[in-house]
Amino acid sequence: MATDQAQSEAATSDTYEEFEQRVRRISNVSNAAGILQWDQEVVMPEEGTPARAQQLSALSSVGHELLTDDETGELLAELESAELTDEQAAVVREVRRRYDRETSVPQELVEEISETTANAHPKWKEAKENDDFEAFAPTLEKLVELKREYANHIDPDADPYEVLFSDYEPYLDLETAEHVLEQLRDELVPLIDAIDDSDTEIETDAFAGTFEDDDQEALARDVLDSLGYDWGRGRLDTAPHPFSSGTQFDARVTTRFEEDDLLGSITSTIHEFGHANYTLGLPDEGYGTPLGESRDLSVHESQSRLWENHVGRSRPFWEHFLPIARERFPGLEDVSPEAAYEAANQVHDDNLIRVEADELTYHLHIVIRFEIERDLISGDLAVEDVPEVWNDKYEEYLGVRPETDAEGCLQDIHWSHGSFGYFSTYSLGSVLAAQLYDAAEGELGDLDDDIRAGEFGELNGWLRENVHQHGKQFTTPELIERATGEEYTAEYFLEYVKSKYGELYDLEEY
Amino acid sequence: MATDQAQSEAATSDTYEEFEQRVRRISNVSNAAGILQWDQEVVMPEEGTPARAQQLSALSSVGHELLTDDETGELLAELESAELTDEQAAVVREVRRRYDRETSVPQELVEEISETTANAHPKWKEAKENDDFEAFAPTLEKLVELKREYANHIDPDADPYEVLFSDYEPYLDLETAEHVLEQLRDELVPLIDAIDDSDTEIETDAFAGTFEDDDQEALARDVLDSLGYDWGRGRLDTAPHPFSSGTQFDARVTTRFEEDDLLGSITSTIHEFGHANYTLGLPDEGYGTPLGESRDLSVHESQSRLWENHVGRSRPFWEHFLPIARERFPGLEDVSPEAAYEAANQVHDDNLIRVEADELTYHLHIVIRFEIERDLISGDLAVEDVPEVWNDKYEEYLGVRPETDAEGCLQDIHWSHGSFGYFSTYSLGSVLAAQLYDAAEGELGDLDDDIRAGEFGELNGWLRENVHQHGKQFTTPELIERATGEEYTAEYFLEYVKSKYGELYDLEEY
Repeated sequence: MATDQAQSEAATSDTYEEFEQRVRRISNVSNAAGILQWDQEVVMPEEGTPARAQQLSALSSVGHELLTDDETGELLAELESAELTDEQAAVVREVRRRYDRETSVPQELVEEISETTANAHPKWKEAKENDDFEAFAPTLEKLVELKREYANHIDPDADPYEVLFSDYEPYLDLETAEHVLEQLRDELVPLIDAIDDSDTEIETDAFAGTFEDDDQEALARDVLDSLGYDWGRGRLDTAPHPFSSGTQFDARVTTRFEEDDLLGSITSTIHEFGHANYTLGLPDEGYGTPLGESRDLSVHESQSRLWENHVGRSRPFWEHFLPIARERFPGLEDVSPEAAYEAANQVHDDNLIRVEADELTYHLHIVIRFEIERDLISGDLAVEDVPEVWNDKYEEYLGVRPETDAEGCLQDIHWSHGSFGYFSTYSLGSVLAAQLYDAAEGELGDLDDDIRAGEFGELNGWLRENVHQHGKQFTTPELIERATGEEYTAEYFLEYVKSKYGELYDLEEY
Repeated sequence: MATDQAQSEAATSDTYEEFEQRVRRISNVSNAAGILQWDQEVVMPEEGTPARAQQLSALSSVGHELLTDDETGELLAELESAELTDEQAAVVREVRRRYDRETSVPQELVEEISETTANAHPKWKEAKENDDFEAFAPTLEKLVELKREYANHIDPDADPYEVLFSDYEPYLDLETAEHVLEQLRDELVPLIDAIDDSDTEIETDAFAGTFEDDDQEALARDVLDSLGYDWGRGRLDTAPHPFSSGTQFDARVTTRFEEDDLLGSITSTIHEFGHANYTLGLPDEGYGTPLGESRDLSVHESQSRLWENHVGRSRPFWEHFLPIARERFPGLEDVSPEAAYEAANQVHDDNLIRVEADELTYHLHIVIRFEIERDLISGDLAVEDVPEVWNDKYEEYLGVRPETDAEGCLQDIHWSHGSFGYFSTYSLGSVLAAQLYDAAEGELGDLDDDIRAGEFGELNGWLRENVHQHGKQFTTPELIERATGEEYTAEYFLEYVKSKYGELYDLEEY
């Protein structure tokens, strides 16, 4: 009996090892593609595109074939009926999910989507430049159809939008997301109105002026130094659309510098630090398996938003950081920490552009896209009607109507990528950031003094222990519940913004 | 009859297309690995190594499996008995060669070599630092054994060193290489002696002084501008050991800056330009197949040496370039083009270090390594006797005896990589450079006026047409014969150096 059991354990262990080797190989091919993408955005000469496109396509199809190979299916089936450790079971769960999804979509459809999005990008760009929605509409229509078809292959019984959403956020269900977004809409619209009606004038010109790129870069490095970025495993570069990418051994940050937007460069750098810092907190020994990979987009965004907003837009942060900024920019000599804080938290209710939005109006930009996407995918909204519905919603939620589609429904690149269901993770992450920050302060006590002293180690230690180190071992709801002791909720975010902006704008009712 | 033929042609065309797709995929995976290697040398954070090693290993084994798959063998067999165009036949020939070699070596041996070299590198480094050959000897012995075994799998009937040599230079046979190296030894030793005995003093301190990195970088960019480097498909960075890499869409140069060695940075930049310029001359439409890949190491080195030596160490080049250099370094105001030319062509017969050698003594460094490698692999020389034989040969050929193994047989990294048979391609390339340069001048007329005017277009056009654009369509001997009308020969190189150094050092007998 003991011998039988020992034999069976040994067999499982061999099978698991073979499985893990396969998983690591797939992951390494995908991480290699990540380096090629970083290279393309940051250092590749401009005419390198044709070769790069072929290289990325080769890695993607090699990875797909390794994952969807019959052998992967056989190993999964064998392991699912074996005795596994919790960690092993988590790896099997994550790979199973990807395997099922990738095997259910015919390769021809994947290629058609890939080709259509490749062509959609220049079409979208041209349409935006010419403010000509009709030129993009047929492509958008085609993408909506293809993505519906894609969702139908994965789960013919499910709401297709739910399937698409779960590509980005597999474990928070769409109902939860929808509920959170409704709460944001219902609570933020009146809050923003109250700010708009308030007579309180906050300081907005603390960072007015022009700032040299080289000095901005030096300051971005100061920001990263100050937050504790691990330069031995990272680097800072510029990219037109800042992003972070990499692995726990090499998690790189990009940012951008505009001479009249020093604050934008600082907040963007802090945001990307948050992403990279999550990646750097993944366990080394998990590299190559889901145990060493970050949880999905909402959790990733919770990390960038926590650092950007709860740290980087806080009063104590500016008490800490303004003296550092003054060393690079002596012109900031007369700016007070309070003025910097106010400038960093200015609410613009007349803003039409998502990427220029503040911490409050941002979510209404997301709600609008979410509502439109849902109706587009369900068929309740025709592509041709998108501009009007878009403009109506901007008027309703933000009190401002775009005069052109270029600053309306054509502003974002995402739909040209075929990314439907993605936007909401930005808001879901902000909401989670508040919940995590509250839990961290619950355990560590108020963090203001730490931040004022430029000491971020305790906060980061808490995030490492409660979020980063777990990789994908737990599902998102499990991870949240373990870290905070509660289910995922918008309560802390709403509390945070009401209290912060109520005080800042002197709002009686908040 | 016509229909049968049409059907057979269509079938061949389908088979060829399937084959080419496979070849392109393998090539794209390998080019992706090239980007990862560039990244590792140039921009990767220092702690990124563990993940990078796994990524490169995954790409290498994926590429190996795609190449050695039975399907590749079946497609090759089918195409070899079909009617193909010359270009198709060349692709089949090149892939067949790689396929046969890679399928004949057992994967376990490949992995053992890979593991041994991975461990050999730190061992070699430490041995060199401690001047302790004995600490490296067992590893070297193991590598010699493994590479002998490797050669034996590829061709049990051939001289194992010949098999190893043909990994780097498949089409020039070892006998030719050996003959050329003997000629170099026999002719260069007396030439260097004559220089040593000459009373002529040449100017050597034209570039004495210290030079800021930033200014050196600006000048390196001037060099590349001046030679016509295509920045739309390239970039310049620094690396501890300069190299070039990439494809015709993206061929990057690296160089290095030492504050007391401006000349070294300029010549290294020109050398790497020559490599990158070859890559950039490969036909776009051949990308992903051997038709769009460079011929082997000797031809590659001929391109770097042609630009470095025949252009960059010529009198007219310094007449052209010194005024440019003076703009970056006003301290060069009093240096004459003749003094710069002399400094760039100083012969140091007392030099122990290959990478610091001049255009003449360089080849004796190579001859010594070649002779030692041959005897090591054949078993005529025991590893333990390498240091003594090394030192004896330095004394015999260069009249200088290393006092330590660190500046003797431990100086180069190559053996720790298991690279036996590689060194000679450096000399073979220099020899070919002279032959090609002579042929170019034969067709275009004397190029001195062009170079003096900073006009490199005609020379480069000739190289594009006669060398670069052919990719791997022709074997190396075919390529040389088509380009020069003659078989590969050391005659032009020997003529070139005798005439150049005879004049420079005022040698009566030359």
